[in-house]
Amino acid sequence: MKAKGPSGSPRRTAEELAAQQREISVSEFFLKNRHLLGFDSPRRALLTAVKEAVDNALDACEEAGVLPEVAVEIRQIAATRFRVEVTDNGPGIVKAQIPRIFAKLLYGSKFHRLRMSRGQQGIGISAAGMYGQLTTGRPIEIVSRTSPTKPAHSMQVMIDTRANRPIVLKDESCDWRPTFPDPDRPGEWLQADHGTRVTIELEASYVRGRLSVDEFLHQCAVANPHLQLHYRRVLLSRAVGSEEPSVRETAAESLPTDAEPPEGGEWTTFRRTIKELPRMPEEILPHPHGVELGMLMQILKDTPARTLRSALATEFSRVSDRTALEICERAGLDPTTRPSHIAHREADKLFQALQNTKLMRPPMDCLSPIGEEAIVAGLRRQVSAEFYTAVSRPPEVYRGNPFLIEAGLAWWPPGSGTEGGADEPVRVLRFANRVPLLHQAGACALTRAVVQVNWRAYGLTQPRESLPVGPVMILIHIASVWVPFVSESKDAVASYPEIIREAVFALQECGRRLAAFLGRRHREHEARRKREYIERYLPHLALGLGEILGLSDRQREEVRERLARLLQRSPASGS
Amino acid sequence: MKAKGPSGSPRRTAEELAAQQREISVSEFFLKNRHLLGFDSPRRALLTAVKEAVDNALDACEEAGVLPEVAVEIRQIAATRFRVEVTDNGPGIVKAQIPRIFAKLLYGSKFHRLRMSRGQQGIGISAAGMYGQLTTGRPIEIVSRTSPTKPAHSMQVMIDTRANRPIVLKDESCDWRPTFPDPDRPGEWLQADHGTRVTIELEASYVRGRLSVDEFLHQCAVANPHLQLHYRRVLLSRAVGSEEPSVRETAAESLPTDAEPPEGGEWTTFRRTIKELPRMPEEILPHPHGVELGMLMQILKDTPARTLRSALATEFSRVSDRTALEICERAGLDPTTRPSHIAHREADKLFQALQNTKLMRPPMDCLSPIGEEAIVAGLRRQVSAEFYTAVSRPPEVYRGNPFLIEAGLAWWPPGSGTEGGADEPVRVLRFANRVPLLHQAGACALTRAVVQVNWRAYGLTQPRESLPVGPVMILIHIASVWVPFVSESKDAVASYPEIIREAVFALQECGRRLAAFLGRRHREHEARRKREYIERYLPHLALGLGEILGLSDRQREEVRERLARLLQRSPASGS
Repeated sequence: MKAKGPSGSPRRTAEELAAQQREISVSEFFLKNRHLLGFDSPRRALLTAVKEAVDNALDACEEAGVLPEVAVEIRQIAATRFRVEVTDNGPGIVKAQIPRIFAKLLYGSKFHRLRMSRGQQGIGISAAGMYGQLTTGRPIEIVSRTSPTKPAHSMQVMIDTRANRPIVLKDESCDWRPTFPDPDRPGEWLQADHGTRVTIELEASYVRGRLSVDEFLHQCAVANPHLQLHYRRVLLSRAVGSEEPSVRETAAESLPTDAEPPEGGEWTTFRRTIKELPRMPEEILPHPHGVELGMLMQILKDTPARTLRSALATEFSRVSDRTALEICERAGLDPTTRPSHIAHREADKLFQALQNTKLMRPPMDCLSPIGEEAIVAGLRRQVSAEFYTAVSRPPEVYRGNPFLIEAGLAWWPPGSGTEGGADEPVRVLRFANRVPLLHQAGACALTRAVVQVNWRAYGLTQPRESLPVGPVMILIHIASVWVPFVSESKDAVASYPEIIREAVFALQECGRRLAAFLGRRHREHEARRKREYIERYLPHLALGLGEILGLSDRQREEVRERLARLLQRSPASGS
Repeated sequence: MKAKGPSGSPRRTAEELAAQQREISVSEFFLKNRHLLGFDSPRRALLTAVKEAVDNALDACEEAGVLPEVAVEIRQIAATRFRVEVTDNGPGIVKAQIPRIFAKLLYGSKFHRLRMSRGQQGIGISAAGMYGQLTTGRPIEIVSRTSPTKPAHSMQVMIDTRANRPIVLKDESCDWRPTFPDPDRPGEWLQADHGTRVTIELEASYVRGRLSVDEFLHQCAVANPHLQLHYRRVLLSRAVGSEEPSVRETAAESLPTDAEPPEGGEWTTFRRTIKELPRMPEEILPHPHGVELGMLMQILKDTPARTLRSALATEFSRVSDRTALEICERAGLDPTTRPSHIAHREADKLFQALQNTKLMRPPMDCLSPIGEEAIVAGLRRQVSAEFYTAVSRPPEVYRGNPFLIEAGLAWWPPGSGTEGGADEPVRVLRFANRVPLLHQAGACALTRAVVQVNWRAYGLTQPRESLPVGPVMILIHIASVWVPFVSESKDAVASYPEIIREAVFALQECGRRLAAFLGRRHREHEARRKREYIERYLPHLALGLGEILGLSDRQREEVRERLARLLQRSPASGS
């Protein structure tokens, strides 16, 4: 049963193997697995760094109740090196928190609560800083001001990856204030009272088009109509035969139609189209039907409540004091028991009782949808089409977490000049909590839902198990207190059946509306064709009738007019 | 520039926001994100738990130089609850290490080294235990014996998810030894001197077929011909109208042809077909061309070497003492500098010099391929086909990490009774470091490579951007010191271009051989058809010739034989 190892490989004992066991810091783990965080290629690294910084800026503004203003600059400083700088007018960050927020993985305010926000992991911005540090050896720089009456503070921090701890390199007070280009007066600047600027230097590459920073920011504006977003990029152009690249100031290309046509290195502004913040999503308690047995035991151990009954009523959503009593009775447990005294067997009974008690669904004011109107407006920003529609579904629940799905669709006649022809798969814009998802489309539940819908029923062609083909753009958004992403880079939504089902429903409704529109359009087109045909012969008809009946010119004209009116009343008379 | 929040959502200050910032333990993170670890559905949870335990068992055996023997039992103990028990004859685990190995995420021996192994993250088995604890409240149980002369120890451990720390519930000495069913004498048991048994209770569901535990173990046997694997499952069957499920002993179904036909609850054995361990892969040092600037700075800070020159020569692979000197000169640095005194600017120069120095590729004895012969044998275990081939590519490098690709292909005539018809996409078996990858096929670089190959050139049909269609099975294996997975559940390989390219090359070679075989087969088929046609008329031809020439019976027979010989010499005479 026991075999000696082949020659050359010494047999090792359990003791020898034990000596190699070590703890792995979470920073080391993600440094080695940086593709999990979206830093697998220089091109994607640039996008991910911008994305994490913008997500944080928007979350901060919204939490503080500030209408967000964000400026993004990407500046190429060497052939493969960029500096990303993101400025916001948010509430600012108190000095003591800066090192841990920007140089410690798994640290943040959004993980331990159930409320819709862009960030949720406490990884993103520190990961971007860590990638910059890994590839350039440079720290992440933060300047932040929390109030017009207090000085700003400027810091440089790095991450000690062995210990997942921040190292502060610079820590100074200064007079900085966030400034943003004035879109109405080019060259002028506007100042804000408070805000934060983050600067990261990293190895990266810039490529325009699909999956670019430009596309990400453009889609950000689509999903966040209350955001005013400024963008510029400054690229080097390598002159032929020269060693040193020279600065070529270029601005964002393929930008939306409502932005000013950009010139060299100048700022482009995506103006806000809504001057109000979306309703602030509320924080909720966990719903009993989404809590596993082990989690229930943990909650009972941690609760400050003195009795089981009050623990149930205060730690969970949708459990009233009366329902709590009912649950205790159903589980055969004394409602006055100390929660921490509940043993494994009792907890199991309690768990079963919770599952078998009918409860209201979790409250839904924790979600903030984009809204049908704003989705249509967003699609108009993206594409010039003939038909637009949007659907916001009512909230649903997966694993106890409330979520809702919204979908939008635009259609244009093939050959009308709008990009995206009749032979190409439709373009799908995916969003999660208002953040554009660009990478990993194939692994995403939202894409899967588009593929599952039978688009042939709505007048599009669709190869088997593929995206439909045609002059269509689809937008799809999931809003949730906890979006289940397939990896830490947060580019694709995991395929929970509840999520796919809701997305399919939303898309089917869009599809039905498209089919109705296309049917109407086809009928009108046919009718118009026939009417034009008849109209061409109408004068001749009137002339013929006039000759047969011996009508005067005036009478003949009257007949022609009456015939024309008749034709107008029944536009589809020919069908 | 500043806006008040809408009514109802109070404006929060930086100080208020700061108060919500908290550290997140890595266990909490993965508990909430358990789909990242492969525990998103009860069905997949069962597979993932088995997979993590089997991976660990195999790694332990191979490291200790023991020919592995593994027994897997899955036992249903309630409608949605299972007990998974995996026993190995590995070296055992010393008592002090058990709690951390099984109840602490990010702890292990495989992360901090460059050597091919199944585990690499230090997450898997603790995650399985944590999922069991979450869904059933039960601890993970371990019994282990490191030597026949020492007692075994039996432990129950749980994980304190708030702190990512183990909690020991039971810790006893006992007389346990690993036992395995004797495949030659049903009902008898064989004992091993040392080994480990892991037991996890979890919420799960068992479904046979694709993505099942059965399929995983079957493929394990394919990729590990040196493994002897025993398997049984004990399921409950719910009698109609009865509340309590009763035990129905069933054994593995759809098992390979070389296993004994199983009966109720009995053990099935996948016998080993190779009685030798694969060559033990060697541990290597990082290669300079795969090291980023930040990593270089870290290495220089941590090295015990006294001079820059010796640091380069001892910390990296393929840097001799002479090359180290050359690199220092190229960077304009004094080779006797203390490595820890190298500042950022010098490190950057050193980094550039390393990139610009020609170095041998990393050593490749860190990889242990399955081998072409074993791949063909494995395919034979999976499918009864007419044509088999396999290709092992020479090693290559991505991000400084050596890897190699192997591919195999089987083809059978449509309608020959082998499952998988001419109209279905080909089945692709994916492996990474000899571990079968079942989930997330669409997100995997190996699948992508199959799609990228133009299979039409090799005689198969293939829809655009899809898997080819036809009676074919494809096997593809990546072996690497660090497999880049797209998520912690390790089901799909990230799409590094170097990996996809190598996989495409291997598949193209298989494709060319298939095309040659199909061409030969077609020609032979045609020739046989023609020969049969001629042979039918041969006697008549001989008869006619005999009559014309007035031959005797003997002479006529001679003519017939000579004509037949002529035909045999040129089998494709008709083409």
